Amino acid sequence: MKLHEKPFGIAIHGGAGTILREQMSEEKEGEYRSNLNAVIQAANKLLILGGTAIDAVELAVMMLEDCPLFNAGKGSVFTAQGGHEMDASIMDGTTLEAGAVSLIKSIKNPVQLARKVMEKSGHVFLAGEGAEKFAFEQGFEKMNDEYFYTDFRYEQLKSAQRSNAVVLDHTDLNEKKFGTVGAVALDIHGRLAAATSTGGMTNKQFGRVGDTPMIGSGTYADDRTVAVSCTGSGEYFIRANVAFQIHSMMLYGQSDIVQAASNVVQNELTKIGGDGGIIAIDRNGRIHFEFNTPGMYRASQSNGEEIYVGIYK
Amino acid sequence: MKLHEKPFGIAIHGGAGTILREQMSEEKEGEYRSNLNAVIQAANKLLILGGTAIDAVELAVMMLEDCPLFNAGKGSVFTAQGGHEMDASIMDGTTLEAGAVSLIKSIKNPVQLARKVMEKSGHVFLAGEGAEKFAFEQGFEKMNDEYFYTDFRYEQLKSAQRSNAVVLDHTDLNEKKFGTVGAVALDIHGRLAAATSTGGMTNKQFGRVGDTPMIGSGTYADDRTVAVSCTGSGEYFIRANVAFQIHSMMLYGQSDIVQAASNVVQNELTKIGGDGGIIAIDRNGRIHFEFNTPGMYRASQSNGEEIYVGIYK
Repeated sequence: MKLHEKPFGIAIHGGAGTILREQMSEEKEGEYRSNLNAVIQAANKLLILGGTAIDAVELAVMMLEDCPLFNAGKGSVFTAQGGHEMDASIMDGTTLEAGAVSLIKSIKNPVQLARKVMEKSGHVFLAGEGAEKFAFEQGFEKMNDEYFYTDFRYEQLKSAQRSNAVVLDHTDLNEKKFGTVGAVALDIHGRLAAATSTGGMTNKQFGRVGDTPMIGSGTYADDRTVAVSCTGSGEYFIRANVAFQIHSMMLYGQSDIVQAASNVVQNELTKIGGDGGIIAIDRNGRIHFEFNTPGMYRASQSNGEEIYVGIYK
Repeated sequence: MKLHEKPFGIAIHGGAGTILREQMSEEKEGEYRSNLNAVIQAANKLLILGGTAIDAVELAVMMLEDCPLFNAGKGSVFTAQGGHEMDASIMDGTTLEAGAVSLIKSIKNPVQLARKVMEKSGHVFLAGEGAEKFAFEQGFEKMNDEYFYTDFRYEQLKSAQRSNAVVLDHTDLNEKKFGTVGAVALDIHGRLAAATSTGGMTNKQFGRVGDTPMIGSGTYADDRTVAVSCTGSGEYFIRANVAFQIHSMMLYGQSDIVQAASNVVQNELTKIGGDGGIIAIDRNGRIHFEFNTPGMYRASQSNGEEIYVGIYK
């Protein structure tokens, strides 16, 4: 059923990594699928009603932040100090405006703060206490630590501390999972947007900043080409400027979305040892998922047609 | 006089902006020129002796940080709180390894800390107190605020506070200058490297992070193409991923260093309202300066030949 003349679509991810069918209970898998499904439904409805891509990706990422299954917002992993430090970014492919925040401790929806940075701060990237000061001046509520607390993540911290490991949101010693959430969208007005949010790494130290708040690494959108959101071993995504590199292969190398995403994730990224994945939607509404890990939580819907939800390869 | 079979070279900048001959005293101009000259001499000597590009850019940026004329290290501008928050990054074009720090308050040479992050932290980007904690664990000395104090910058803060402006290192109301320092180099082993450092914006608030510590925006190097260091209105350099975009036009668009730098600085950047400049050196040792401002403090030397020093367009 094609509701509009113009293409539109939404794609989301909830992290990539060693997500194996044999380690997943039926109940847990059902929870992931129903949450991914609900996010897509809400964002798709917004797009059908003529909403903008930037509103759609903000909404989708906020819903993923609010869901404790994913490592962003509520459900964020713990730092070495037993707290939370969250990062997020958002980009509008029409204006090339962008906003990002890093090392956020007490804001419910970091992606909402990233958007406020984009629209109201005169800057692109605010970090740490300064970013929170800006948030409170803009009327954001200060959440206490309890809001972000989940037993599951606390157990991960204790387990990581026992093994003295800095781990990316793993659920057991055999599982490596990059906990990030993200969304990309094309609206019926031809606008692209992307957003990404994360709680970072379990047992993280030293104010580490990953790729999520870095425009061009974790998030990029340009109406001429593509919108991209990434999840993976952030350091490698930064060094390869993954999101922007996919855009620039399409802009300067005449690659299509599949060629560009595949080359960057399977060649440029693996060459330096990076693993993870990306979601992307191009200006024609073509959606592509690319990852070099056993799985990536993901879902999409194009032109109001059937919803796709995937977890494994 | 060609000392080596293999090409090598060094280029540096000390910021771009409204730098006008009519506003510059002969004495001041002489100081800038002699400092730029001394930095090039030292880095060139290192390269002639077979030193690596990464050592050359680190040395050059450290010398620029130590010189109070430039807005980085000693001579950094003041934040709204009357302190200093410095950013720096460095990248090795051979390994594509990179290091970056942001919101650093008490480290003499932020570029040195960025390199330590690259080599010892397991991460790429550390910010704020966490980054300083890492620094002290690595044996960096904690400098007190007095080290970074200069009358000139303090007057700039007072002037900015009177006009309630967040300004990028301006020296009077008619002058807009982006205070950043940077270096790019090619060594005789064919390795490229880039590094950038800044004291940020006078009267800066909210933990603002500019393009300087962002790999791909302010700094990028890849032996296949080019090494780039940027200076300018950081927010726009982030949105356009300026350094990486020059690299990707060369890698994917078959542009040469001049075409790529010119297109990115004069078209992609100005299109969204950004101003500033870049220095670049390609794998063949070709050096290029590109800026869309009236001036940029810059200098270079190729293959041990004559030193070039420039300030105005």
